[in-house]
Amino acid sequence: MLIVNEEVCQKVVGRADAFAAVEAVFGAMARGDARNFPVVREAIGHADALYGFKSGFDRAGLVLGVKAGGYWPGNMAKGLTNHQSTVFLFDPDTGRLSALVGGNYLTAVRTAAASAVSIAHLARKDAKVLGMVGAGHQSTFQLRAAAEVRAFEKVLAWNPHPDMLPRLAAVAEEIGLPFEAVEREALCAEADAIITITSAFEPLLMQVWIRPGTHIACMGTDTMGKQELDPMILAGATVFTDEVAQSVSIGEAQHAVAARTIEAGDITPLGAVINGTHPGRTSDDEVTVFDGTGVGLQDLAVASVAARLAAERGLATEAAL
Amino acid sequence: MLIVNEEVCQKVVGRADAFAAVEAVFGAMARGDARNFPVVREAIGHADALYGFKSGFDRAGLVLGVKAGGYWPGNMAKGLTNHQSTVFLFDPDTGRLSALVGGNYLTAVRTAAASAVSIAHLARKDAKVLGMVGAGHQSTFQLRAAAEVRAFEKVLAWNPHPDMLPRLAAVAEEIGLPFEAVEREALCAEADAIITITSAFEPLLMQVWIRPGTHIACMGTDTMGKQELDPMILAGATVFTDEVAQSVSIGEAQHAVAARTIEAGDITPLGAVINGTHPGRTSDDEVTVFDGTGVGLQDLAVASVAARLAAERGLATEAAL
Repeated sequence: MLIVNEEVCQKVVGRADAFAAVEAVFGAMARGDARNFPVVREAIGHADALYGFKSGFDRAGLVLGVKAGGYWPGNMAKGLTNHQSTVFLFDPDTGRLSALVGGNYLTAVRTAAASAVSIAHLARKDAKVLGMVGAGHQSTFQLRAAAEVRAFEKVLAWNPHPDMLPRLAAVAEEIGLPFEAVEREALCAEADAIITITSAFEPLLMQVWIRPGTHIACMGTDTMGKQELDPMILAGATVFTDEVAQSVSIGEAQHAVAARTIEAGDITPLGAVINGTHPGRTSDDEVTVFDGTGVGLQDLAVASVAARLAAERGLATEAAL
Repeated sequence: MLIVNEEVCQKVVGRADAFAAVEAVFGAMARGDARNFPVVREAIGHADALYGFKSGFDRAGLVLGVKAGGYWPGNMAKGLTNHQSTVFLFDPDTGRLSALVGGNYLTAVRTAAASAVSIAHLARKDAKVLGMVGAGHQSTFQLRAAAEVRAFEKVLAWNPHPDMLPRLAAVAEEIGLPFEAVEREALCAEADAIITITSAFEPLLMQVWIRPGTHIACMGTDTMGKQELDPMILAGATVFTDEVAQSVSIGEAQHAVAARTIEAGDITPLGAVINGTHPGRTSDDEVTVFDGTGVGLQDLAVASVAARLAAERGLATEAAL
């Protein structure tokens, strides 16, 4: 069994690796070669924690495993991140534990990779302005990943707490992109691609603000009740997702489906675009939405890459069980 | 994080430890202090494997974790056990992985401990003859554990394949108990306590064979469709279980409930007897059945003991994640 700790994950898994792994597993999911198992998510009744598991099997990549962990809101005060995850990989031929991989950094890069994959496949090729809605920890990963898939010339950003924007501005500066803090309506008026990555429970972007041709990667909504977009945006857009079942239950589409402005059959797995079985964007005026809910197979895909690269570079620890 | 491998588990966790841990967690479950989370169990579509997770949280013992693993029928041919499990324990205050514990030996001892706990609390105090139905790998653990909770004077055994009986006979001899291979009806005619531990999909024991006062620990049925007892045995018995929800869905009681000879409300958690809120056996003529389905909290309880004892004795490996 290999142990790949958080530091090693950061050392070996780059954005290009995460992009390739997430793109491949989205394709495998859409072909029926990879499947997520039911998600377990429980309020444990201690330390206000939410705890659970996302698991699955990618028969194409032969990756079997589970991400365990959750959200401990009191961790920050103890100098730990609130989200804590660990990924366990098993040998699909024998069921034996094959790797133990730190999941905190990987969760951030796999989520950023998902929106980047959506921008690569769905945003207009000539997209120049990137709008960032949300400026928390995860937003910096999102910005770095998105900047690698289009020749963006400017970043516009908004956050419910403006005092958090300087960290995101620093990342934009580091990668050489002009950065402006703007109001949401102004952001929508100019952005060609928008990433929403907040913990909102109400629509932050309204349909009347969205320009034709915009691509929106909606990444914050991963729980019942959370919401970032006016449901009318989805009604007027071509909607894609990682997994349709999650999109309509815990993703952004839950609200449009509840309001009956769209139904599950209107939502396309992004993997179908990757596989070439769905055309994706078909005009420069089309609004596209990617409802990124976060699936276990994404975690397993990047953890599998981490384990392989760490082993190749002699950075994994061996342990016997 | 501690790593406690299979060998160390065998070295540190004895039957008395497993008995105490399982008894305590059954009590905590019945008080509502410990809860199993939904079970994930999937046919992965590769190597004929069944794979999944049993998880839960014991707020009284502060044990949070998951047992991952499953059944790989081709393992035996590779020199590995078909059942493969690993237990992961997390710090309930922070969500960080605290221990990685081999689960193969522990699964055997926790299952044996469950039937022993049921015999200790439900069999007649003067039980002299133990009947063993099933002689596979798990049966030897069952016999050793049962022999410690009553002054048995003889073991009667039956197995669908009689050629497997000598291994069980050797264990009986080792612990100083006379052993006889008998037919099932003869076994029931003499046994005071019976343990069924097979992979049967049809009733092996009939109600007309069972003597008044018998206790039956029915341990093999843990999946929809499996069955070891005539459902009429349960209809005429006082029925106990580890977890009622599992008993009626995947345990032995599934058949009696489907046949409407008993209902969920007729089944008592064994923890209620342990806690003294249910009297358990109330006469020497009563037939008692323990429907042992196997819950995640049992695995977590013994794994937690393994981690503590291994750490105390300097046998755990430390690793950073």
